[in-house]
Amino acid sequence: MPRQVSAFSNSTVKRLRSLRDKKHRRSEGLFLAEGLRIITEARDSGRLPEIIAFSSEGAKHPLAADIIAATEAAGGEAIETTADILSKMSGKDNPQMLLAAYRQPETALERIDRSSAPIWIAAQALRDPGNIGTILRTGDAVGAGGLILIDDCADPFSVESVRASMGALFTQQVASARWPEFVTWLRSGSGQLVGTSLKATSDYLDARYEQPCFLLIGNEQQGLPQSYEAECDLLVKIPMAGRADSLNAAVAAAVMAFCVKASWRN
Amino acid sequence: MPRQVSAFSNSTVKRLRSLRDKKHRRSEGLFLAEGLRIITEARDSGRLPEIIAFSSEGAKHPLAADIIAATEAAGGEAIETTADILSKMSGKDNPQMLLAAYRQPETALERIDRSSAPIWIAAQALRDPGNIGTILRTGDAVGAGGLILIDDCADPFSVESVRASMGALFTQQVASARWPEFVTWLRSGSGQLVGTSLKATSDYLDARYEQPCFLLIGNEQQGLPQSYEAECDLLVKIPMAGRADSLNAAVAAAVMAFCVKASWRN
Repeated sequence: MPRQVSAFSNSTVKRLRSLRDKKHRRSEGLFLAEGLRIITEARDSGRLPEIIAFSSEGAKHPLAADIIAATEAAGGEAIETTADILSKMSGKDNPQMLLAAYRQPETALERIDRSSAPIWIAAQALRDPGNIGTILRTGDAVGAGGLILIDDCADPFSVESVRASMGALFTQQVASARWPEFVTWLRSGSGQLVGTSLKATSDYLDARYEQPCFLLIGNEQQGLPQSYEAECDLLVKIPMAGRADSLNAAVAAAVMAFCVKASWRN
Repeated sequence: MPRQVSAFSNSTVKRLRSLRDKKHRRSEGLFLAEGLRIITEARDSGRLPEIIAFSSEGAKHPLAADIIAATEAAGGEAIETTADILSKMSGKDNPQMLLAAYRQPETALERIDRSSAPIWIAAQALRDPGNIGTILRTGDAVGAGGLILIDDCADPFSVESVRASMGALFTQQVASARWPEFVTWLRSGSGQLVGTSLKATSDYLDARYEQPCFLLIGNEQQGLPQSYEAECDLLVKIPMAGRADSLNAAVAAAVMAFCVKASWRN
């Protein structure tokens, strides 16, 4: 049976709350997800939380009740608490009625089976966790295998990234690597590395994309370093009609990923 | 000559700072933009700020010096201040060295010349100012004429939206309208209203798009109301390969806008 917790000083409450900080996420190996929708996505992807907190209202939904029971049956912890405490834990004024902590999956680059999906997204030095979550969501939508975070990126397990991913964090593989390590792994098998560049001469709509296709997305401010562009098997440009010379990183990833997928239709 | 301001209590400092709030943006008719890049974009689009604040470091850049001089020559106000005060005004720990307040353009729906661009984006009840700014940036990139905000949307002149727009707020027209008003205006001339829907049977890649094309993007959580979908001349679906049933709103707008543009290439 779930415990009733009404004190901010409760150790589980403090532990969940601490997961808003990267340092604690890393030391605990856990991350937070909020709301019935994403928690149901996780369960449908075969993932149960290690800890789940909910309001009495939240537990009324049959899907929520199922997941709470399954969490406890699997040895996890379930606490019923107040809206106030949920709000404190999630940092939101209008918290969801469910909050759960999941084990961070660890995907080493070497364990990725590149032939399991036609598209993979690789993002270099992305700073905005919202962009990372949005790219994961897009990856799920185009049937990508996962996201490879290159160099120093924002934390994919941050609350902002998890929110933006809308559950895709549970379906997409996420690996991290420094650039040399990524290149070594990439070149140990098949795969076309595709970058977007203002200097490219091929229009992105005319290029020939091969499977598995690794889409390389650069940092929000600087784009890709020149030496990284030089490593690409294919550089394409997305024509810009207006004054701006670039797209939002998550938008560029989506436009490329949907274009690549469309190019394989016939 | 720019005044030197070193007091937080200075009336111009307080006025600029107040523009982080929607209420003050509305009553003053002004909005904030930060950084040399966006302020230069604005100047290149023929727009000068009414007020510009900068650090001594910020004024050293020749482009910045030009814009500061042009602002004063046009009767605007220029103040040189400290990094501390710039930080307080922008709400950022690492503020840009330039901060400027611009007059909000007022575009009434009736003043939009729909034939001036092949694509227009219409967004309904968008709640996330970052999405609005990102859609403006995408609109600039695809050569859209502007963004029509339908029903209650987040403020396109908020700091988050301006940042995400990367200057596109100065090149894209922005109008607001309730749905009935928008439909009346739309039907008073030519234009194809295109919505995306899970219920649609046409794949977005196979549809025939006509100019001017009005892309209708729905609310982040609910998508488009059914009656709004019913008003569309064309409903298309973007196939979802994974578990998720929708894309981020700004991503959906971009995927559609680039697809529509690509369909007109031949």
